[in-house]
This record gives sequence, C-alpha cells and structure tokens, in this order.
Amino acid sequence: MTKPPGSLGRLEKLSIQLAGIFGTEQPVPRGKTVIVAAGDHGVVAQGVTGYPQEVTAQMVLNFLAGGAAISVMARKMGIDLMIVDAGIAKPLPYHPELRVVRAGCGTADITQGPAMTRQQAVACVSAGVELAVEAADGGADIIGTGDMGIGNTTPSSAIAAALTRRPPAETTGPGTGRDDREMERKIAIVERALEVNRPDPNDGLDVLSKVGGFEIGVLAGVVLGGVLARRAVVLDGFISGAAGLIACSLCPIVRDYLVAAHLSAEKGHRIVLSHLGLRPLLNLDMRLGEGTGAVLAMGLVEAAAACLTDMATFTEAGVSDREPGDGTTETS
Amino acid sequence: MTKPPGSLGRLEKLSIQLAGIFGTEQPVPRGKTVIVAAGDHGVVAQGVTGYPQEVTAQMVLNFLAGGAAISVMARKMGIDLMIVDAGIAKPLPYHPELRVVRAGCGTADITQGPAMTRQQAVACVSAGVELAVEAADGGADIIGTGDMGIGNTTPSSAIAAALTRRPPAETTGPGTGRDDREMERKIAIVERALEVNRPDPNDGLDVLSKVGGFEIGVLAGVVLGGVLARRAVVLDGFISGAAGLIACSLCPIVRDYLVAAHLSAEKGHRIVLSHLGLRPLLNLDMRLGEGTGAVLAMGLVEAAAACLTDMATFTEAGVSDREPGDGTTETS
Repeated sequence: MTKPPGSLGRLEKLSIQLAGIFGTEQPVPRGKTVIVAAGDHGVVAQGVTGYPQEVTAQMVLNFLAGGAAISVMARKMGIDLMIVDAGIAKPLPYHPELRVVRAGCGTADITQGPAMTRQQAVACVSAGVELAVEAADGGADIIGTGDMGIGNTTPSSAIAAALTRRPPAETTGPGTGRDDREMERKIAIVERALEVNRPDPNDGLDVLSKVGGFEIGVLAGVVLGGVLARRAVVLDGFISGAAGLIACSLCPIVRDYLVAAHLSAEKGHRIVLSHLGLRPLLNLDMRLGEGTGAVLAMGLVEAAAACLTDMATFTEAGVSDREPGDGTTETS
Repeated sequence: MTKPPGSLGRLEKLSIQLAGIFGTEQPVPRGKTVIVAAGDHGVVAQGVTGYPQEVTAQMVLNFLAGGAAISVMARKMGIDLMIVDAGIAKPLPYHPELRVVRAGCGTADITQGPAMTRQQAVACVSAGVELAVEAADGGADIIGTGDMGIGNTTPSSAIAAALTRRPPAETTGPGTGRDDREMERKIAIVERALEVNRPDPNDGLDVLSKVGGFEIGVLAGVVLGGVLARRAVVLDGFISGAAGLIACSLCPIVRDYLVAAHLSAEKGHRIVLSHLGLRPLLNLDMRLGEGTGAVLAMGLVEAAAACLTDMATFTEAGVSDREPGDGTTETS
C-alpha cells in the first residue's frame, strides 16, 4: 500500500481483523445494522435511577419515530436500525418496524431473587441470535449493538462484577445517581443482588438469568449470531459490554469478531473492555447507550476495510518505496 | 433533547461549537471538502527522511488517481478533495483536478537560511485563503486540511518549537528516523534551523518564511479562509497543526472555528494541540497525514450537528423527563 508501514495506526490492525473475519484480503462490507434491544428492570423498585420506568417504552417509540439520538445518527450515517422489544414492562401497540421478542414484562427485582428463569435467559439469547442472523442475511456485514432500559446500568454492573470477578465498587458507575450517597447505595444494591443470587462466574447463562436483563440477553445473542454469520460485531458501551461478557463466557472465540466502539464514561466499562481484551476506538465521554457509540465507530470500520481493499500499492501507483529494512517510518 | 444532559459527551460540546460557527441552533452542514496541499523541502538534503523527494510528486499523482489512503477514505465518506501543488520540486504535467498555486520549486534548506522569502510566505497564505473561500462558496461547510511533503515533519517541528517556545527536543518526533541516533540528528537539524534563522515567535509569517514550507503556508491560509467564510475547519495531524499555529499567530480568533481531528503518533503534536487549546476527537496512533485524520473526524462533526438539528425534545416525543435539579444523570 502507498503509505509508510504502520502509519494508519489502529486502522491497520482493524483492517487485519476484518480480513480475518470476512476471510478475504479485500473485505467489502455491504450493509450496516445496529440492533437496539429494550427491556425493563425490576430493580428500579430500589430507586437506582432518576427516570420513571415508562421512559423505556417512550424511548422505543421515539426510536421508531426517528427522534432519538440513535435514530438521527443512524440516518445520517446510512445505517439500518432494528428496534427490539426484549421485554419492556407493558407491551406497546403494534408497529410494523418494532421486533417483538418479549421474554417477559420486565425482569424481577435482582435484590430479591433472580432476574429471570434460565428458560427466559435462553429465550433472550436465542432471539438475539436469530435477529443477528436475519440482519446478516439481509446484507448487514457490520452489526452493532444498542440498548435501552431504565435502570440497566445496575444489572450490567452486577454482570461485570460476576464475570470479571471484581468487586461491585469497581464495576459500578454513578448511573443516574446525583451524589456519593446515591452511588454508595447503588453499589450496595449490586452487592446485595450478587449475594442473594450467587451467579456462577463460569456460566454466562446463569449470570444472565440471576442478575441480567432481557435486552442484555438479546444483545448477547446478537453477538453470538453475528459471529455465527461471520460478521464484524461492533459493541456499543457499558450495557453492550456486559452482553459481550456473557457472549464470551458462552463462546470465547467471539472475541475475535468484536470491535469495541468507544469507552463509555460509565465507570465499569474500562474493566469490561479490559476483560474482553478490547481497546475502544473512540473516547468521547459518551454515556447514552442506544448504540450511539457503535454508529460512530462503524465509519471507522468501513474506512479501515476500504483502505485494505481500494488503496494502490507502491508498484501500481509508480511511487518509490523507501529502502527495506525498517518498519517504523513515515512518509513525511 | 430526548437524552440525559451531557450523555453525548464531547459530541455535545462540538455541537455547541458548530452552532456558534454557523450562527444557528440547528446547523445543517452541507458539503465537506478536504484541501490537501503538497510541497517539497530543501532540508531533505540533510537526510531527515528515508523516502526520496520524488515521492511527494508521485503521491500527488496517486491522490489524483484515487489510490492513496486519503482518496479511498474520502470517496467512502462522501468528502470532496481539492489537491493542491503548493510548491513541489518539479511541476507536474497538467491535470484538470490539480490546483496549482506553486510558490516555488520546493523550499530552500532551512539549516542554511530561510525556507522562503516573506513574499512567498504571503503568496502561500493568500492562495490558501482563496482555495478555502472557493470551497466554501462551492458548498463546503466543513473544511479539512491535509498535507503531503517528504521531509515536512522537520519544518513542522521547527514551527512548533518557535511558536510554542518549547525546545526542539520536545516538538520533534521520530519521523522517518530508524533509531535514537537519527532522532538526535533530526533534533540537531531543527535546532540549527532555528539558530540560523531566528524566527520571530510573535510573527507567524516570519516563522513560516524562515522555517516553514509551502504546503504549510497554504494550509495556514486554508484555516484563515475557512474562518473568514464562517466554516468549521477540521485540522488533520502534526503538519496541519503547525499550519494551525501559524494561522492562530496571525489571527487568534480562528481557534474558535477549529476542530482537532486526531492526536497523531508524531511526538510534537500533543504540544501543538495543547498550545492551540484543542482536544483531539480521535486517538488512533495514526501518522500518515494527507488529511486522513480529518476525513475520519468529519463523520463525528456531522453526527454532532445532526443531533442538535434533528433530535426530538422530551415534549415532542412524549417522553417523561426526570425531575429537574441535577445535570449529571443518565437514562439508564
């Protein structure tokens, strides 16, 4: 390629990963789809969040109407969205664009017992696999994850603590808390959820069913389905990271197919990515979820693939290469 | 907007900057153009680079033929390119897409005397202003900078040292050097250039003429012209940063219109950005130049503007906002 070796930095490593995923030295990703799964959480009864639970459903309607951040960004970037009701508290009226794979009417309160049954956990993951495979069959070569769920940083912190074996104080961020006292309360809630449920850190499905969420289970399935279809899977932020942990627990090889879109401002995300062995492409202090980080990173993924596929070689372009013998140079 | 305050992180600050630049709360950037200026450098006679000088011209032809990294990425991202011969060693044959504003046949060796006359420096900057205004008139609301010039990290390090008043050892990166000895040699060359020429750190044009480069002067003009036309100007990496320093020295207000695309792997870039008061959007270990960083960042700039313009408010979307009284919350 007509550039000094290594001069495109992380884009070069990304392009090599893409070549591996797509099994070709000249990958040409076609469509891009972000699958945004929504679910509600019984743990909101503990007051872990400042927004009322009905916001989950209201935001799903906002996604469908095109007014949310993810809607606006995806439209701008030419990315398809698949909006999924994974189990919000109350079913929404029929909408042709809404995928309904409801595993329940919101999870149970994880401080009192398991979030869901193992059967429900399996149903979520299976639904996610199917959605990802459908997206892939429809032409999506880059599949992103996105989430919506009032209260869902709490189960994500619990999942992260369980699967990375780190204390909740390290995996729990401020979320909607306004001060240190609320933050301590949230850590205590995550600790209680883990004590009450004792999830098995060697079994991602057990962790999902004990302290997870329906949308998190669907997203874990999306990761698995994307990998099954040999697609690049772009993980959004902290909640998607928790889903990634579950997917990796079930099938460690998925790691090779994952791209970490960004480092969320939510505290536990760094630990999640480190455990997954992923380095985020972006670091923009974002903490919205919805797949907004995934959408922004997809442009970088496409650029990396395009460089591999479309750039001229020194010979093709009639450009003089430098003398061989070093790999640490730049043109200018 | 239907998102917790601050949850889009740096994208929100960027959108506020764009609102200021375009003078509207709902900016809708139309076209995007990267202006890539090329020039040659007499200092290559000192052996500061591993690539032969003719690579500058060869890469310009590669830009025009569409085979370079910048060509591929810009095509992928829907960004127009303006390729400019600012003063490469030998004129190229006529090409309808090549803008020729040659200020000379490469600069003089800055270790022996000034790179160019003050008149040439003025000509470069003026040409850059005109090109940016032309791009703006043609519909470019986001204007990026890009460079090509074998040896041009050396004058950029000298410019950075002169204008930030830091020692060359801090503003000089490995460039094409293969080892510490070559690195020390390059620092000595930058030191000599500054001793021989004694550029006035209060006069950007003096710095440009004494230790600069033709393409750097054109890019300084592009920054000024972009600001004159009230456009957002996306600075690429280290060489563009040196041009930004010169532009800011001539007219400090330009800072408000600048977006730093990325942090280059080239050592001195951090100091340049810090002096400009800019925080880079991306950090991908890239060090290619050409405008490749600018192209990648433009997608983020567009996304930021789109959120401001197209997102629904809580009232419009019928989404419950949380109770007022805090600004540090998130939805989930």
